[in-house]
Amino acid sequence: MADDSATATAGSKSERTRQRILDSAAKVFREQGYGARLTDIAEEAGMQAGSLYYHFDGRESLVAEVLRLGVKSAFDQVREAVEAVPAGAAPLQILEVGVRAAAATNLEVGDYAAANARVFPMVTEVVRKEHYALQQEYGDYLQDLLQAAVDAGELRADLDLAVIRMLLFGAMNWTTEWYRPDRGRSAQVVVDQLVDMVLGGLVSRDHNS
Amino acid sequence: MADDSATATAGSKSERTRQRILDSAAKVFREQGYGARLTDIAEEAGMQAGSLYYHFDGRESLVAEVLRLGVKSAFDQVREAVEAVPAGAAPLQILEVGVRAAAATNLEVGDYAAANARVFPMVTEVVRKEHYALQQEYGDYLQDLLQAAVDAGELRADLDLAVIRMLLFGAMNWTTEWYRPDRGRSAQVVVDQLVDMVLGGLVSRDHNS
Repeated sequence: MADDSATATAGSKSERTRQRILDSAAKVFREQGYGARLTDIAEEAGMQAGSLYYHFDGRESLVAEVLRLGVKSAFDQVREAVEAVPAGAAPLQILEVGVRAAAATNLEVGDYAAANARVFPMVTEVVRKEHYALQQEYGDYLQDLLQAAVDAGELRADLDLAVIRMLLFGAMNWTTEWYRPDRGRSAQVVVDQLVDMVLGGLVSRDHNS
Repeated sequence: MADDSATATAGSKSERTRQRILDSAAKVFREQGYGARLTDIAEEAGMQAGSLYYHFDGRESLVAEVLRLGVKSAFDQVREAVEAVPAGAAPLQILEVGVRAAAATNLEVGDYAAANARVFPMVTEVVRKEHYALQQEYGDYLQDLLQAAVDAGELRADLDLAVIRMLLFGAMNWTTEWYRPDRGRSAQVVVDQLVDMVLGGLVSRDHNS
């Protein structure tokens, strides 16, 4: 029992260290791109470069994990938010919850999302394919929410949802390039404006087009 | 006169070479990021690395010019499209022309726009500030089009246009990350869907929200 407990404690400390390395890696990859110095990542995490190699065997596995975790944590939060919607809610309401969660998580895990855009084009084919599959899964999930609202007659029937989904991800992903929490606007305002623009449209409802 | 003509011809050949280098640089920076090898850029342009240095004195001036040209050509095309709208057009119509032109040019000058996102975080403070000023100018121009349509009562009055403008740029800029002309959808479809989503909104007009 003492051994188990020690292992559990060690494991959990190791997990925390791992998380600290990944947070640091996301921040440094975001700033320096794929060619980021691993010593800078180690320094950011407050450890020796050698200790970093104990957890990750090199740049590529670190990049792969930053990419995976960025999408996974966003996807997890969206799914949790959607699953918390009371049964019987309209598909449009569920969609709105999903979009709000997706936009909010992007603003929260900014380093991961920004690092993603920065390093993705430089990764190996194996990492790219794996990551692409996870991104597809997340995108398909969002597209299913859109489709359900179309089927319910709540969204327009003339939409090309595969394109809409990417435009929507674009508006959300790009927030990491310009949004700074210290410049007067809360993340909530950005999320609200996104939902207003995407779902309601900018054109005034009084205006006959 | 003969001298003037010769100078003009030499100038124009030099201009073409310069353009070829920049197109190549945009492509290679897009693929390899800020750390791209200048020899790869020279090879892509079909010249020796030494000749490249005749036109640009190094990585930073090449990056700066790729950044500048990417925004400038987009901005020029948007302005031209807007100025070609017949006098007396409604602000909303002018806005739509501007957004269509902005989205279309992004899909056309994909290498420049994608290189922009890739290298911008790594440039020196001087280049960053210069580039930021040009981007601001372009963004302000788009925001003025939005504001005019708000003032005319054609767009909703409750919008935070400084946020809307960035979300709109996000949806447009991100197309370079996913849109491939060879995958069945024309650029026109993407532009149409963007305008439909942003101006009209996804929610069906029959739906009471």
